[in-house]
Amino acid sequence: MSTIKQVTAKARNELSLMEVLHALADPVRLEIVRQLDEAGEKACGMFGIDMPKSSLSHHFRILRRSGVIVSEHQGTVIMNRLQRKDLDARFPGVLKSILAGARQKD
Amino acid sequence: MSTIKQVTAKARNELSLMEVLHALADPVRLEIVRQLDEAGEKACGMFGIDMPKSSLSHHFRILRRSGVIVSEHQGTVIMNRLQRKDLDARFPGVLKSILAGARQKD
Repeated sequence: MSTIKQVTAKARNELSLMEVLHALADPVRLEIVRQLDEAGEKACGMFGIDMPKSSLSHHFRILRRSGVIVSEHQGTVIMNRLQRKDLDARFPGVLKSILAGARQKD
Repeated sequence: MSTIKQVTAKARNELSLMEVLHALADPVRLEIVRQLDEAGEKACGMFGIDMPKSSLSHHFRILRRSGVIVSEHQGTVIMNRLQRKDLDARFPGVLKSILAGARQKD
């Protein structure tokens, strides 16, 4: 039995620009994406976002459903990473330019 | 008296990435933006979008408030255009990459 199980993955040709933009058009979700861009991968509880767990889970769910992130069970934690390759192939420049815009606010 | 009056304009440094993404994360608003990208400028009634006028006005309002478009009274019509220069200066590549993604669906 494997200890790694992918929670969800959206095929490249199923990615929707509307869903991706909606997923990114929120400060909490954009912060999650910004941190994953820096860290590569990160467990759900390690983002330092002060918010009830249920609300945070909701944001992760939207990011997963849109295909912006992919999550995997690794033992008892859920690890997240950007689905960068597929996003870049499908909508070139969108994630990169939005992340650059998000970094301006720092 | 001038017959041209700018309805709204958002200063470059007031543009918000969240507001811009929210404005673009809707199929009707993205279609308006796509048509303005092609046409340069266009009157509110000329987009060929089958929708009640009040709903369409709501979408134009969101696009204006976000600073994605600028509108001007020209006599009896309201002419719209993208606020491309300021958007590109503030968030380089965002509008261009999203428009490219939107064109894929044609």
